[in-house]
Parts: sequence; structure tokens; C-alpha cells
Amino acid sequence: MKPLRIDVISVMPGFFESPLQKGLLHRATEKHLADIHLHNLHDYGLGRYKQVDDTPFGGGAGMVLRPEPVFECIEKLLAERSYDAVIFMTPDGERLEQQSANRLSRLKNLIILCGHYKAVDQRVRERLVTMDISVGDVVLSGGEIPALMLMDSVIRLIPGVLGDSESALTDSFQTGMLDCVYYTRPSEYRGIKVPEVLLSGHHKKIEEWRNCNALARTLERRPDLLDEETLEELKNK
Amino acid sequence: MKPLRIDVISVMPGFFESPLQKGLLHRATEKHLADIHLHNLHDYGLGRYKQVDDTPFGGGAGMVLRPEPVFECIEKLLAERSYDAVIFMTPDGERLEQQSANRLSRLKNLIILCGHYKAVDQRVRERLVTMDISVGDVVLSGGEIPALMLMDSVIRLIPGVLGDSESALTDSFQTGMLDCVYYTRPSEYRGIKVPEVLLSGHHKKIEEWRNCNALARTLERRPDLLDEETLEELKNK
Repeated sequence: MKPLRIDVISVMPGFFESPLQKGLLHRATEKHLADIHLHNLHDYGLGRYKQVDDTPFGGGAGMVLRPEPVFECIEKLLAERSYDAVIFMTPDGERLEQQSANRLSRLKNLIILCGHYKAVDQRVRERLVTMDISVGDVVLSGGEIPALMLMDSVIRLIPGVLGDSESALTDSFQTGMLDCVYYTRPSEYRGIKVPEVLLSGHHKKIEEWRNCNALARTLERRPDLLDEETLEELKNK
Repeated sequence: MKPLRIDVISVMPGFFESPLQKGLLHRATEKHLADIHLHNLHDYGLGRYKQVDDTPFGGGAGMVLRPEPVFECIEKLLAERSYDAVIFMTPDGERLEQQSANRLSRLKNLIILCGHYKAVDQRVRERLVTMDISVGDVVLSGGEIPALMLMDSVIRLIPGVLGDSESALTDSFQTGMLDCVYYTRPSEYRGIKVPEVLLSGHHKKIEEWRNCNALARTLERRPDLLDEETLEELKNK
């Protein structure tokens, strides 16, 4: 199978150095299941100082990424192969959720443009970007951390990346509910015992306890995840 | 002013190496406005192999962080100084939003526990964790990327971290709306011209255009951010 290729464009590619050498992203690239290429936007900068940003027209604080370096970098990539999406990480984009991660994990070539400074020139967004993705209603210093988050959520779903394929399927959100709570050894610690049923070896009862626990947690913490029907059923219990 | 101290506990502290040496987090620590300490959970691991995880009671895929190493590490920190919060990064926590970042940026000492593998033993959550924070309805391989996101969103709000203090105030979400679009030089590129008004030097008109643009974008992309009153006003226009 061809690996998922991701081209990441950033003014700060060095940011990604250790995250790509550790954990999941490292494992996926070592196994040739993902292929991550970093592009330094400064390589496409203007003039002797490789300028990539400038002040906003109309005034105000903060800097804006100029269109030329971004166009040059993305158009070079688009000339080399076809891409399924040119993604811009931005707080006004579509929220990254499990469904979008599932969908992206089935694609083949992605470009991720990391914003930085105040904004990117709007012409880049209009002409080049095909998908705006947000990681939440919170402002960050750049798109680098959101890009990591996107890559991690997507790449872990590629078959073969996780050691134990069942693990990804029972995660929170894949089932439409929060996950149940977990315990491991020792069976008693600081006076708190693990729930008896989990030590019983009785698979059916354990399954029931976990479903019940997951449902109770979802009802308490995230009732918005439950559909009308489930909520109605719970009320009648 | 005393810097914001953050103690990050992870099974993979090397993940943070380059992110802490680049950009905002680097700048904040260089300026002594934030003080980030990494703790390797394996240093508190059990036995010769410094074991930190074990299989879940009740069976199933994935590994669970054992309570002893986490208790030992966090209790050591708690004995050294008082902390405002022991934060666990988890998909079933409270969503990280701008309001929570604002609130956390005014605190002094924080512990962030990064989950990893399937889960952390529930006794850790019950006894030690005071705040569960989620970065969205998407599953990640661990809490390291969410911890970065939390730190970035919080630390950029500390006075003096951003070069230009006005910049943080006009960001998306601080005003309760998405931000307007931005343009920079050149004024015409690939046949697309920057909106005339932004080149006019007419500050009042520019301000109006930006407000209008921000409002229109919020209405199109995130009407949920607008209150009833604003929505009603817009309908009557």
C-alpha cells in the first residue's frame, strides 16, 4: 500500500523535529505507512532576507504571510503530483473531529499549510486552500501544533500503525460515546480497590459494566453526544 | 513577576524538545515569563525495567498507566510547592476554549499529566487530578500534543510574551467573533486586487469594513458564536 504522504509548509519546520522522531508519527514513518515532508516557507522568501511576511493593508498589529512564497511552494508541489486536499490550519475552519480524521486517513496526498503571525494573505486562502481545519475555539501562536494534532489523529487510523488494531476501534468517539474508565494493577492502591466485577473474569458482566460506565460518563460529561433515542431510554430507566 | 511554572509529566518527554526550542514557548522561557519542567514518568517506573503501564483489569486491548509512578511523581511535586491545578489531558475533559486559556494564564503553578496508551488508572484521576481538559472530539496517541496546545494558548496570553500586545486582543474568539480577513503586499497578485478600502488610509472606513467582514464570516461559518441580539439585528438589515 502506498503510504499517506503529507507535505507540511511552515515558517518554523524545526518545530517538528522531535515530534517526528518520537511515538506514533515516528513509528508510522519507520513502517513506511506515512511519509511526512517538511517545507520551510523561508526557502521561498523574497529578496536577500527571504522575507515571508509583511504588515497588513489597512494597518493594525501583527504580520501577514505574503502570497508569493506560499503560491510558489504550493504550486511547486502541485506540479509534482496530485493532492487530495490543501489544508489550512485556522481557527475559523471546520472543527477537526473523529469523522474528519477517519475521512482524511483514507486519502493519499495532503498538503498542510501552517499559519503563523496574524494571518495569511486572503488570496492564498481563496485560490489554493481547499479545506480549512480548526482545532478549537482557542488562539494559538501558529498552525504547527494544530498540524501535529491533525497528523496524529489521522495517521493513527492507518491500518498497521497501531500495534493493536482493536485499540483504535474502542476509543472515545469511535463508538459515539466517551470511553469507560480503566484500572490496572495493583488491585488495591492507597485504599482504593478496583471494582470487583473487573477482577471476576466474567466477560459478559465486564462488558455490561463497561457499557454502563461509558454511558453514565457520557451522560454526565457530554450528553450532547447521545442521540434523542438513547436519552429517552435512559430517562425511562 | 514570577513566571508561570508548568510541570509536564509524560512517558515521552523527548517529544517536547524541539517545540520548546522554537517560537513562542522558547521566547517565553527565554524571557523568564514561563518556566517549563519536563518529567519522565519512566524515572518513577517499577522494577528493573522501569515499568509504567500494565494490561487493563477486565481484559481488552491497549495498556493502562499504573497508579504508582504517577502518584510518586505528582506527590513529589506537590511536596515541593503548591499548585493551582493538576491537569489531565483527556478527550472526556472540559473543552479547551479561549475562556479557559485566559483563566489559566493568570495562575502560577500548573501540573500537566499527559495520558498515553489506552488510559491512566482511574485512581489517579480520582485522587490527584483536579482538572480534565480536552482539545476536541478526536482521539490522539497521547496527551503530549494537547499539552503543547494548552501551553501555547495559555503562555501567549502572559503579558510581555507577544511582541505586540495588541495582537492578542484582536484575535479570533477574544472579541466573541471570528477575525476578519487580511491582505498584505503586493496590492495586486495573480489578478486579485486587495479591497480598495484597505488601501484608502481612511481609518474609520477600514474599521467598518473589518467589523463587517468579521461579522459576515462569523455568520457564515460560526453563527453559534453570535448572540440572539446580534442575529436579530442582522436579520433586520
